[in-house]
Amino acid sequence: MNMEAFVLGTSGTMPLPSRHLTSVLLRREGELFLFDCGEGTQVSMRRLNLKWKKISAIFVSHTHADHVTGLPGMLMLSSQVERDDPLYVIGPPKIRDFVDASRDVLEMYINYEIVVKEIENPSARQVVYQGDGFAVRTVPLSHSRTCVGYVLEEDPRPGLFHPERAMEIGVPRGPLWGKLQHGSEVELDDGRVIRPGDVMGAPRRGRKFSYVTDTLPLPTIAPEVSGSDLLISEGMFEHALRDTAHAKRHMTAREAAQIAAEAGDIKQMGLIHYSPRYTERDLKRLLQEAQELFPRSFLTRDRQTIPIPYEEDA
Amino acid sequence: MNMEAFVLGTSGTMPLPSRHLTSVLLRREGELFLFDCGEGTQVSMRRLNLKWKKISAIFVSHTHADHVTGLPGMLMLSSQVERDDPLYVIGPPKIRDFVDASRDVLEMYINYEIVVKEIENPSARQVVYQGDGFAVRTVPLSHSRTCVGYVLEEDPRPGLFHPERAMEIGVPRGPLWGKLQHGSEVELDDGRVIRPGDVMGAPRRGRKFSYVTDTLPLPTIAPEVSGSDLLISEGMFEHALRDTAHAKRHMTAREAAQIAAEAGDIKQMGLIHYSPRYTERDLKRLLQEAQELFPRSFLTRDRQTIPIPYEEDA
Repeated sequence: MNMEAFVLGTSGTMPLPSRHLTSVLLRREGELFLFDCGEGTQVSMRRLNLKWKKISAIFVSHTHADHVTGLPGMLMLSSQVERDDPLYVIGPPKIRDFVDASRDVLEMYINYEIVVKEIENPSARQVVYQGDGFAVRTVPLSHSRTCVGYVLEEDPRPGLFHPERAMEIGVPRGPLWGKLQHGSEVELDDGRVIRPGDVMGAPRRGRKFSYVTDTLPLPTIAPEVSGSDLLISEGMFEHALRDTAHAKRHMTAREAAQIAAEAGDIKQMGLIHYSPRYTERDLKRLLQEAQELFPRSFLTRDRQTIPIPYEEDA
Repeated sequence: MNMEAFVLGTSGTMPLPSRHLTSVLLRREGELFLFDCGEGTQVSMRRLNLKWKKISAIFVSHTHADHVTGLPGMLMLSSQVERDDPLYVIGPPKIRDFVDASRDVLEMYINYEIVVKEIENPSARQVVYQGDGFAVRTVPLSHSRTCVGYVLEEDPRPGLFHPERAMEIGVPRGPLWGKLQHGSEVELDDGRVIRPGDVMGAPRRGRKFSYVTDTLPLPTIAPEVSGSDLLISEGMFEHALRDTAHAKRHMTAREAAQIAAEAGDIKQMGLIHYSPRYTERDLKRLLQEAQELFPRSFLTRDRQTIPIPYEEDA
């Protein structure tokens, strides 16, 4: 089952010709999940040939213009294709007002169901979306507007089946193998009861994707994102501008790396939401500052595709 | 005094990677006037190195998402620069709701005055903006939403001064010439009164820019845009899709050309607001259909600059 992250944009505050506004799209077995939707996000999707029809849910970190003003156009576009399933729009308080006001004032014709879910208590972690084999929960953050991060985590997968062990115990090749693989006990002809654990390894953990942007570097973030196969994290400012970053309720690239290092078991961390003041060359400096604390840091780029393999396939 | 139109985008309905949403910016002696502001308009401005701080007024044709969703980001950006003069936002009913809802829901910090002017009776032509030496008035249109076009027209300029005529009559070179040039009568030493008309040609007309998009091809449009130095007009569909165009309350490129031909004295007409169904190659067909009726038609292109000289300098 494939999983990839598509970086739709990397800019903070305003879109630049070379950097769209911060937005990441996660694809899991053909189903799409969008994280933030600023002005122009639909253009990035189109450039990557991703279909908005396949978006199941849009997760909004907070209702600053640079994270939501692409929503009305996206909702309107979705109405131009046949769509049976509802579209979920999930975010902090005010997201419903924003969607409703857009629909009302712009009198949008929308021919499918939009389910807006406001996060009732954004300061407490909670599951906000339950899919088949995975869930999305919030990470409480602290910004100048109520803001949350998101973690998409898959359920554990069954352990690996060891055919040689099954043969050894005397389970005949055939339907009994399948039952064991699907987690059922089986009884052999000789009356012995074989449990799945007798022929299979320990359950394997699923994949974990975390999206954290527009926040002070809270100590509570690391435990939430721990074990991520991919952490996408704000790296808006260089270390020298730490005070500026904090005054604006943002964090530096180095602070993002600090969190990744503390969290433990993060496979890789992609920085995002760059201040428009930084040229491409400047950003290398931010990366260097991050890599000193967390070497598996990288700079996300517009339209980059990041595969998220299972741990054992990586 | 220079005047240019900058084509910020040419797409209708949705932004494409190669075509931003329909928007035209008019620059007159350094002052900027924006016509429509869809998602991504600010990116086009930045690519052309145009400063939003210099925008005096934004004229909105109608409140469909593809013509207004770039406004919130633009208003927010303007707050990041020093600005003393108010920004006018002018459009049909609901434009105030849209600006107010955006400011309210997104809790935008805006440190300058925004004056929203709703057009009270959009079915009657009216002056909606009065500048120094020019005015902007509406052109009533007919679309699926209340919609107006705009005409920016300069006041007539004084006629040309003919020094040889002044010498002939006996007006001595000097301050009397200046007075005559500025429209005042002067009295000579011999008691004769010389009027400006005695030494100057007829008043010369100012320049005229017209912006007409998202409308059925009404017969009332031609007289309003007559004499335009530049007419920017919707050319959303090819002739074969005339019925589709009309069902959606749009017009074809050929119908735009028909209007330009009927209007008389249109220097040139640029087509805009192309349906996303058309490739660049397809558009040549639309152009051909237009040129059969109005040869001075052209296809506007994203980031094109179109000089609008005085008639006698053209």
